[in-house]
Amino acid sequence: MKVSELGEFGLIELLANIINRTRNPQDDSWQQVILGIGDDAAAWKSEENVQLATTDSLVQDTHFDLNIITWEELGWKAIAVNLSDIAAMGGTPRYALISLALPGELETDCIENLYKGMAQIANQFGVAIVGGNIASSSKTMISVTVLGSLESTSALTRSAAIPGDQVAVTGNLGLSAAGLKMLRQHLKFDVETTRLLREAHSTPIPRIDEGQILLHRGVKAAIDISDGLLADLTHICQASKVSARINQNTVPVHPTVQKNFKSDYLQLALSGGEDYELLFTTSSQIINRLKKAMPCPVTMIGEITQGTPGEVTLIDAESKIIPWQKAGWEHFKSKT
Amino acid sequence: MKVSELGEFGLIELLANIINRTRNPQDDSWQQVILGIGDDAAAWKSEENVQLATTDSLVQDTHFDLNIITWEELGWKAIAVNLSDIAAMGGTPRYALISLALPGELETDCIENLYKGMAQIANQFGVAIVGGNIASSSKTMISVTVLGSLESTSALTRSAAIPGDQVAVTGNLGLSAAGLKMLRQHLKFDVETTRLLREAHSTPIPRIDEGQILLHRGVKAAIDISDGLLADLTHICQASKVSARINQNTVPVHPTVQKNFKSDYLQLALSGGEDYELLFTTSSQIINRLKKAMPCPVTMIGEITQGTPGEVTLIDAESKIIPWQKAGWEHFKSKT
Repeated sequence: MKVSELGEFGLIELLANIINRTRNPQDDSWQQVILGIGDDAAAWKSEENVQLATTDSLVQDTHFDLNIITWEELGWKAIAVNLSDIAAMGGTPRYALISLALPGELETDCIENLYKGMAQIANQFGVAIVGGNIASSSKTMISVTVLGSLESTSALTRSAAIPGDQVAVTGNLGLSAAGLKMLRQHLKFDVETTRLLREAHSTPIPRIDEGQILLHRGVKAAIDISDGLLADLTHICQASKVSARINQNTVPVHPTVQKNFKSDYLQLALSGGEDYELLFTTSSQIINRLKKAMPCPVTMIGEITQGTPGEVTLIDAESKIIPWQKAGWEHFKSKT
Repeated sequence: MKVSELGEFGLIELLANIINRTRNPQDDSWQQVILGIGDDAAAWKSEENVQLATTDSLVQDTHFDLNIITWEELGWKAIAVNLSDIAAMGGTPRYALISLALPGELETDCIENLYKGMAQIANQFGVAIVGGNIASSSKTMISVTVLGSLESTSALTRSAAIPGDQVAVTGNLGLSAAGLKMLRQHLKFDVETTRLLREAHSTPIPRIDEGQILLHRGVKAAIDISDGLLADLTHICQASKVSARINQNTVPVHPTVQKNFKSDYLQLALSGGEDYELLFTTSSQIINRLKKAMPCPVTMIGEITQGTPGEVTLIDAESKIIPWQKAGWEHFKSKT
């Protein structure tokens, strides 16, 4: 059946059923919900704390290509990119609202699968999908708003980096951009490599626990890597009015990327984007303690310096400057 | 300058400046803000109460036509339709997040004007615009999420209508649909009529105070009129599993509509939509008290009955049934 045949209100009912069927009513977030999908607004009991809110969109042909991502993966990813923003603040994601713009000729199966993917990641991270909106459009656009909470009044911010801080990153980099390259260029790898690359690009896992550990252990400045390591570090440097120097040889390129993308693995790791790892700055003492406390690798890759605000310098093992161009995801300048 | 020349981050800075320049820092909402536009997420101090959240989109060529609405009006309207949802719950709007999808060839002036319209209504209603997101798209889409608060734990809901309730509506109906008709068909009226019709359609005023008065005076069931009186009453009847009977001759058609649209004023008032008045059901005693307490007209137009859930019957002065067709705004079935 096509979306236009089911109509707006039939579709809302279908999607509400998916959410209600799959949700875990024991989740803290659901326990607070007074009104979910189906009224003029959602309502939930809120506690006295700090609220976080973020919104991010995925637009067809700008951010995704339906030839290389499934609807279920797309649903996961649309929520994941927002959860990653909450992770970058050190917060706990709680509630999500979904705004969909869809062509009427789309099959309702597609939207069911989209919502299954959304429900899956929402349940995994204890997020209640409480509302949304559906409109007709020639191309699909998924706009998600996630509300979160923070126990302390201080969050991880982009503006708290200070000269003398070390720069560090969670996990390994380059897998998502390599996955996109594989999918676009139909590159062939073994089953395990193919799965790893595809999942990194299509169903990234936000670093929620890790963001909270950073905050509790005294880190002040962080961002999630969506535009690319160098571009996102530039955001931190701009907001904090500092410079940074990165040692290229210390950047944790994912071994699968290094092995299979010999000509451009560094480019993929430095500027590929969509890794959804956390990039943060703090003292080397805190980083050393974090290496034990974190459930994922933590790598020191450079330092924050005084200098031209917003400038990020890349150096090689001999401290020689390597020129780099902003190749991150500026949504109007490049389509990635 | 074109949006694509300024780039995503230049545009974010421009829009953040508009918000910061025009906001009233004394507003309660702004007083609570810890982090506004520019970090991974917005953050604000929340009190122990009930949170409300709603999201609604305006899609180019589905919901608006740039030949008949200015960018500033569009900004106002994109926020207004969300505030109206908060009004329909009896809540206070507090924070807004804006997700924009824009063609790169758009002039930045357009987006500046869009944000000026948004800032204007946000300031008028004490709403802090704390975040957003910008993406590239072939058509413009504006997706807004508004967070609000509620003092009591019970909201006005669609599902609380009971047989024996009277049906009532705030203000007068039909002006917005008549305005759209005027703009589309280039109909000519005197200056004052033209202004009234245009404003009703392009810069509607959400009934925030009125929604709160309804809630405080004991009303339980309400909805805002976006799809049209009969369609929205159907939503209440479906959610409450009741029927309703409306006396056509008691429907408060706006006198300007009645005077200038002689052939279809009833159709415009019953099914035109986008009035953003509040439609509610309660006892006749409460309605009579509301007529004095409310800053706008309140009109009794029918009653809630037992019968087929979701059925709305329209009758004339002789109690004869008048057939009506669902002509409201089903976003996939009709473009209005």
